[in-house]
Amino acid sequence: MTYDDVFRRAVDQLHAEKRYRVFADLERRAGDFPRATWHAPEGARDVVVWCSNDYLGMGQHPAVIEALVETAEKVGAGAGGTRNIAGTNHPLVLLEQELADLHGKEAGLVFTSGYVSNEASISTLARLLPDCLILSDALNHASMIAGMRGSGCSRKIFAHSDLGDLERLLKEAGRERPKLIAFESVYSMDGDVAPIGKICDLAQEYGAMTYLDEVHAVGMYGPRGAGIAERDGVMHRVDVIEGTLAKAFGVIGGYVAASKPIVDAIRGYAPGFIFTTAMPPAIAAAARASVAHLKASQSERDRHQRQTLQTKIALSARGLPVMPSETHIVPVLVGCPEKAKAASDLLLAEHGIYIQPINYPTVPRGTERLRISPSPLHDDALIRELAVAMDAVWSRLDLPRRYEAIAAE
Amino acid sequence: MTYDDVFRRAVDQLHAEKRYRVFADLERRAGDFPRATWHAPEGARDVVVWCSNDYLGMGQHPAVIEALVETAEKVGAGAGGTRNIAGTNHPLVLLEQELADLHGKEAGLVFTSGYVSNEASISTLARLLPDCLILSDALNHASMIAGMRGSGCSRKIFAHSDLGDLERLLKEAGRERPKLIAFESVYSMDGDVAPIGKICDLAQEYGAMTYLDEVHAVGMYGPRGAGIAERDGVMHRVDVIEGTLAKAFGVIGGYVAASKPIVDAIRGYAPGFIFTTAMPPAIAAAARASVAHLKASQSERDRHQRQTLQTKIALSARGLPVMPSETHIVPVLVGCPEKAKAASDLLLAEHGIYIQPINYPTVPRGTERLRISPSPLHDDALIRELAVAMDAVWSRLDLPRRYEAIAAE
Ligand SMILES: Cc1ncc(COP(=O)(O)O)c(C=O)c1O
Ligand SMILES: Cc1ncc(COP(=O)(O)O)c(C=O)c1O
Repeated sequence: MTYDDVFRRAVDQLHAEKRYRVFADLERRAGDFPRATWHAPEGARDVVVWCSNDYLGMGQHPAVIEALVETAEKVGAGAGGTRNIAGTNHPLVLLEQELADLHGKEAGLVFTSGYVSNEASISTLARLLPDCLILSDALNHASMIAGMRGSGCSRKIFAHSDLGDLERLLKEAGRERPKLIAFESVYSMDGDVAPIGKICDLAQEYGAMTYLDEVHAVGMYGPRGAGIAERDGVMHRVDVIEGTLAKAFGVIGGYVAASKPIVDAIRGYAPGFIFTTAMPPAIAAAARASVAHLKASQSERDRHQRQTLQTKIALSARGLPVMPSETHIVPVLVGCPEKAKAASDLLLAEHGIYIQPINYPTVPRGTERLRISPSPLHDDALIRELAVAMDAVWSRLDLPRRYEAIAAE
Repeated sequence: MTYDDVFRRAVDQLHAEKRYRVFADLERRAGDFPRATWHAPEGARDVVVWCSNDYLGMGQHPAVIEALVETAEKVGAGAGGTRNIAGTNHPLVLLEQELADLHGKEAGLVFTSGYVSNEASISTLARLLPDCLILSDALNHASMIAGMRGSGCSRKIFAHSDLGDLERLLKEAGRERPKLIAFESVYSMDGDVAPIGKICDLAQEYGAMTYLDEVHAVGMYGPRGAGIAERDGVMHRVDVIEGTLAKAFGVIGGYVAASKPIVDAIRGYAPGFIFTTAMPPAIAAAARASVAHLKASQSERDRHQRQTLQTKIALSARGLPVMPSETHIVPVLVGCPEKAKAASDLLLAEHGIYIQPINYPTVPRGTERLRISPSPLHDDALIRELAVAMDAVWSRLDLPRRYEAIAAE
């Protein structure tokens, strides 16, 4: 057997489990969001994207594009080096200040992605704490898990957002042992929200440090868009807040905001931060423009919530199995990878609606779904069209209509 | 002791070892490379950057900036999702085709950075090979090491570019066991080159797979800029070629090029690829413009080699301890972290020349150096000024003049 044969078999395995992914080749159009051109094998076609993580459409905001274009024309494309080797550029320094201010922390540190920020920060912080025990929410994102694995520290998993289970583990570890509680604010596949304040209470009581991933909340919650912790008035109690610049902020990159010693330690020890080229200045400038805009403007957040609610109502009214979600994420359960794919294919082919099916390993097997993310730019007419189309597809494929029925299986 | 105290101590440790890094805040100027504005604490100043990894100045090439600007204006800033969730954009698909073609491989796969491409690819490939043994060059980059650690496979290190040592380990492992040889083409801190063809001979003889990091060679070597393997006529013999879009190509991002099964396996199994937002379309378009330009144009490569040679000659003529390097990298040994920092500070303060000192952990302790990277845009006058300035600094700080003298210590 050759090496290629081994890899071919691994890929066959994905096919056998119906989780081989074919990426749709999309071309967005600035000023025309959420519409895009789909470069289908048979030729280009117009579609409406209903599953973008550019939650507020900031990727096409004129101030964001202008900052990107202006900076690229002025300073060029890339950063030209790692942060240390001539790669620290002025827009990046300003972005880090903006992010520290956003979260009310002493310092901010930017990474090439949210994935890298989690991986690099968690592994470094845990490694620097002697005999650290990581307490990890059961539904934490792959990037946080990568960081925990990378730390080499022991890790215990508490049931998802379960304060009792977390307290049990904290008690078991004892007050003296360094403990890092890692969790998210908005869980992106179900749309539920963590009890941040209560987790901070427990952290305080048992002497643990808190690390909060606000990737699916920054820009969208809180009076300045700093996330759920800001909305709940507990931002100052969280030790490390991690976020992305790639979702509601519409650009790319990740960051942490924390005390100066914490940021300085990550900056000085994390290989994933040290040994990689810095973010391009134009990207940093675009991200900063986006953060600054959403700090001052509430209208996108208000309309985002409104259109999300309208979508939930419209889909539920037609008996579609909308999963309970407290946030802007609207998951509709299918419960089978093949049917989820078939529903997605049909929506695209017959209705020009693009919603990627979400299968294992992104969600547990048996909970395959269509995950819808309405934006402020999905207007009421688009919502109506979506509901009609999904209703038709559900009938055509004879998909289950009630959420409870499937969840009980 | 609080958590902050622990991290403060970790940072104090960096200070004590004289390896706390202060990043210079630089602002490059398109059309004016290698000149930049240094935002110093006392105010802005003009400097000449002599340590950029934008080796050919492509970051300011009009075709690259134009592609970036045009695409951003047309499609917006970010990709809006992971590759699977609406994040696969048309320029990115075209970029992957361009890279596959560049390296003469069936497929290409783009990551957010070269670091991530190494980490994700090596860990995934090794994990998929049953009982894989990784054979790693002693001087491999941190990102490759992160990938090896992440794989959970056993790893043996062969002495740097030492064919005898590699063969010994291959023999020891036996023909049957899957083996992955991981190495670089140009080692970026010393500027030496791996015997790629001979390593492929051994791989063939003992049935090993080869993984080659060409990060410091792509764009710069070979008739189409595909790297050292292309220059040496052995590209087709290497199983996986990894590169960056952030150095000679002047933008940001990383990639692998390989057979379709290999690329498909990484695409389907690597968390660092799957669970992160895709590269922005404007960045992909800029990178593609750069790759396409350097595929067709030899003049940047020729002038790069010429100016590098001129720099080596000019520095050596003044008795500066230029370390032997076969490539475009010109390391000048200092051998002490404080003195390296002092030399760098003096060059900046008194001569407006920016060269970051390279200290541990980037290079072994005792081999601290100034690492100079001449570009096609560092003209003969700048080279003369550099030699004069370094000569003055070496005298002023009484730094050792001969390379041998220090190396022998
Ligand atoms: C919870 C969570 N954290 C981190 C990330 C990674 O962020 P980025 O896309 O910026 O790499 C994601 C998704 O991509 C995520 O869902
Ligand atoms: C040998 C090597 N591989 C990989 C990388 C990472 O590439 P990138 O800067 O694109 O993350 C670097 C340097 O940054 C490097 O020197």
